Amino acid sequence: MSSNPLAAYDRPSVAVDLVLMTAVDGALKVLVQRHPQMAWVLPGGLVHIDETLEDTVARMLAQKARMPGAFVEQLYTFGALDRDPRGRVISVAYYALVPAERIERALAAGDDLRLATVSNGACDTPLGYDHDQIVRVAAERLAAKLDYTAIALELLPAEFTLRALQDVYETILSVRLAKPAFRRKMLDRGFLTSTGRFETGGAHRPAELYARA
Amino acid sequence: MSSNPLAAYDRPSVAVDLVLMTAVDGALKVLVQRHPQMAWVLPGGLVHIDETLEDTVARMLAQKARMPGAFVEQLYTFGALDRDPRGRVISVAYYALVPAERIERALAAGDDLRLATVSNGACDTPLGYDHDQIVRVAAERLAAKLDYTAIALELLPAEFTLRALQDVYETILSVRLAKPAFRRKMLDRGFLTSTGRFETGGAHRPAELYARA
Repeated sequence: MSSNPLAAYDRPSVAVDLVLMTAVDGALKVLVQRHPQMAWVLPGGLVHIDETLEDTVARMLAQKARMPGAFVEQLYTFGALDRDPRGRVISVAYYALVPAERIERALAAGDDLRLATVSNGACDTPLGYDHDQIVRVAAERLAAKLDYTAIALELLPAEFTLRALQDVYETILSVRLAKPAFRRKMLDRGFLTSTGRFETGGAHRPAELYARA
Repeated sequence: MSSNPLAAYDRPSVAVDLVLMTAVDGALKVLVQRHPQMAWVLPGGLVHIDETLEDTVARMLAQKARMPGAFVEQLYTFGALDRDPRGRVISVAYYALVPAERIERALAAGDDLRLATVSNGACDTPLGYDHDQIVRVAAERLAAKLDYTAIALELLPAEFTLRALQDVYETILSVRLAKPAFRRKMLDRGFLTSTGRFETGGAHRPAELYARA
């Protein structure tokens, strides 16, 4: 008989699931992966006994989402009894944000990945397990964090126009914002710095490029 | 050989730990429990295979913290490899908030519980496992949520004076706030309603009692 009190328990399995989001042409997108039995799911997998949660996230980002080094934060842990038909699996969900250009390169590398569209928290592609619920919670968290953090910058390249930043806000919040008030609010927050450079190649008057302060 | 792919993995155990906080006489307090080997720890225990996370939280609140029905929210999931000397245990931490009067009744019922003081995120009683870190994260979350939610009301009785509400804010944020600005801000937020009643028995002019709107 083992003296380890942990050995007496029948244990749930623990997985990590990844909600990798981006904003493309005015739509919030989430990366989904083809599943052998369930059509589409979030990229994810079981936590190995010798891996921290962050190790598992890094492995999923690199091997499944093909997006190593993306901005990632823990979202929520989902523990419903019936969320996985194979047995009891508790999922520690993380959300990741990447600029659209980067995700498009990852998509080009494999045909088991695609971007689904998220609108008002609902994914246009029905997902397996409880992944529709996980996507809804991730979209809500992202919208809430826009208001008090610089998280939107994770969805933009290193240099961007205020118009591009406003597009990200309007996409995630599903609203139209007044341009002068939006610009004033963003500049007042102090997390932007002007680069002194201007975008080139547009049809309109060149707009100034900003970067993270 | 099992056909269940989950069976091939050596699994971590999963626990729930509870950061039960209250505000007493200008100090933020956390409920800690005597541990056979480690002096003091947060109340917690392993998630049973047939329990949701919320079931485990309810069991811990009732049996270990003796505080059934407290306000509770998921905090964060902690997965460092060495956080439990008995083996690999991933902890899904929750924080709970209760008014001081209620926690004092629970304390009177058992001598294995006490309130430790939390100051700038640090607990004055060294805790076992990684529980000092969990308390720090909980105190930070609570302070951040004061700013954009009505969470402070969970630490007060059903009817309270604006002075008592300001005491809660000053305790958790470790600051002194200007009374007129604080009152205006709280009333502007719309989550308070005046009861038309006044506190009795104080040495000063009776103050109006408010409640959750």
